[in-house]
Amino acid sequence: MTTISPRIAQAIESIREDRAHGAGWLARDAANVITHAFDECPAQSATELLSCLREVGRALAQAQPSMAAVSNAAGAVVLAAEEKAASGLPAMRRAVLARARQIIDSWEKTSQRIVRRAEQALPRGSIMTHSYSATTFAILERLASRGSPIIATESAPLNEGKTTARLLARLGVPVTLISDAQAAAFMPEAAAVLVGADTVFADGAVVNKVGTCALALLARNERIPFYVATETLKVAPGRPTAHHQTPEERQPGLTIPTVYFDLTPARLVTALITEEGVFAPKDIRPLARRARQYRKALSL
Amino acid sequence: MTTISPRIAQAIESIREDRAHGAGWLARDAANVITHAFDECPAQSATELLSCLREVGRALAQAQPSMAAVSNAAGAVVLAAEEKAASGLPAMRRAVLARARQIIDSWEKTSQRIVRRAEQALPRGSIMTHSYSATTFAILERLASRGSPIIATESAPLNEGKTTARLLARLGVPVTLISDAQAAAFMPEAAAVLVGADTVFADGAVVNKVGTCALALLARNERIPFYVATETLKVAPGRPTAHHQTPEERQPGLTIPTVYFDLTPARLVTALITEEGVFAPKDIRPLARRARQYRKALSL
Repeated sequence: MTTISPRIAQAIESIREDRAHGAGWLARDAANVITHAFDECPAQSATELLSCLREVGRALAQAQPSMAAVSNAAGAVVLAAEEKAASGLPAMRRAVLARARQIIDSWEKTSQRIVRRAEQALPRGSIMTHSYSATTFAILERLASRGSPIIATESAPLNEGKTTARLLARLGVPVTLISDAQAAAFMPEAAAVLVGADTVFADGAVVNKVGTCALALLARNERIPFYVATETLKVAPGRPTAHHQTPEERQPGLTIPTVYFDLTPARLVTALITEEGVFAPKDIRPLARRARQYRKALSL
Repeated sequence: MTTISPRIAQAIESIREDRAHGAGWLARDAANVITHAFDECPAQSATELLSCLREVGRALAQAQPSMAAVSNAAGAVVLAAEEKAASGLPAMRRAVLARARQIIDSWEKTSQRIVRRAEQALPRGSIMTHSYSATTFAILERLASRGSPIIATESAPLNEGKTTARLLARLGVPVTLISDAQAAAFMPEAAAVLVGADTVFADGAVVNKVGTCALALLARNERIPFYVATETLKVAPGRPTAHHQTPEERQPGLTIPTVYFDLTPARLVTALITEEGVFAPKDIRPLARRARQYRKALSL
């Protein structure tokens, strides 16, 4: 029988259905949900409490299986509780709140660090980008201020690229907005490609908005560097898994699926720009060790 | 001063603005326009007539600069006139009508031959395709009848892939319709990719609906063969030239261009399936010689 309260179940459900926010935002939401679960778990002992928190954490991880940051955030908070299990419930509660707060508060500082490192790493000239992420947007704003025009792909099905383009244009940045299929035609004009990530696997492969892999191949084809801006919270311990899809049937014989993510192999990634440094894909593996600990805390 | 009559100028203009038809259809239209131009050219001599026909042929070629079939068809008809210039205007007229008729009538037989060769060349299993062309559609219909499911990309901006998908689904073929950006996610399910062409350059590079180059890169990335079905009329004598675009300005700072074609380099093409045989890209060069003659007939 589940020990998850209806209120927590609902919070997990809204994370599952969320298509508006990226992995970073949802990870913070997951950390927050664990703190509420702490108070709602029907537990008499540290063991019962941990078992309940683990169940909530696993449900959060499974709500967004393509986003390692969600399971990392949930796992990190549960690990904090686990480490204080011998000290009693009040100590566990303080540890959970402190760890969740730390994760939630890290966002702005992390983003600023990534922006600074990206500014040093990226060449001058036009930057092609895909989809929208808060950190990537902050980098593009900075690069544009030093004179880089931006080429944004629409990024179907949700067209987050239109948001990126319109917000940058409003700031006075020269932006070219192209359909996803036009990327090949415009790639020769780009000095670099910059995208965000939903998950980075231990081997350096990147899950991001569908269409990212084609951009990476087009960049390689034109010998243009391909950068991924990501906080280390998004690094997963494991290997790439199959993509997730929502098939939709419209008329007999015709299947119209919607896939939101694709996988870009590590060999197409020039560098991963994180708050802890700029890494070649092969050098990301040590960062995946922490994530393995977080998974273990969730019994995943 | 131009010798092109208003009626011919209008016919050329509708070829320029045509986004509904492919290169094969427009080439036949161009051949037909030259026969009308023969009667409307204000010419007293074979020399004057040829000069007028060349002007019309060049205008046709420039109306669709990314489609070699249009200049090939116009050039072939003008060449026929040129070869009879010593025999007087009636002989020239007969030659022009015969050559134009030959080009126009060749369509169905050419298409049937390409379908037969494609059936032999393509592997069993799912076929991914892009955009719509009559010949490609005929091949897909045949492949589907022997059990190959079809994966069609929408092919923005005009979404001809939706047409391909809906027509095939109506015939009872199992079709998956995906947005262009989803190609990477579905490529591993394909046994081969099949597309048409608007122009094939002498080195084997292919101009086709924008998005084709990314499909070819994704196919190569998954080690899946990439086939181009094309009649030899589409082979151009020259080298690839820059793409053509129609920029559209919607708000300050934001440029929204529309590019209809992109260029797929020869090294990504497994084979060109034509009515004269299945060619490796490097073997297409001899076919480009005829096209050179046609250009010469237009003084291009």
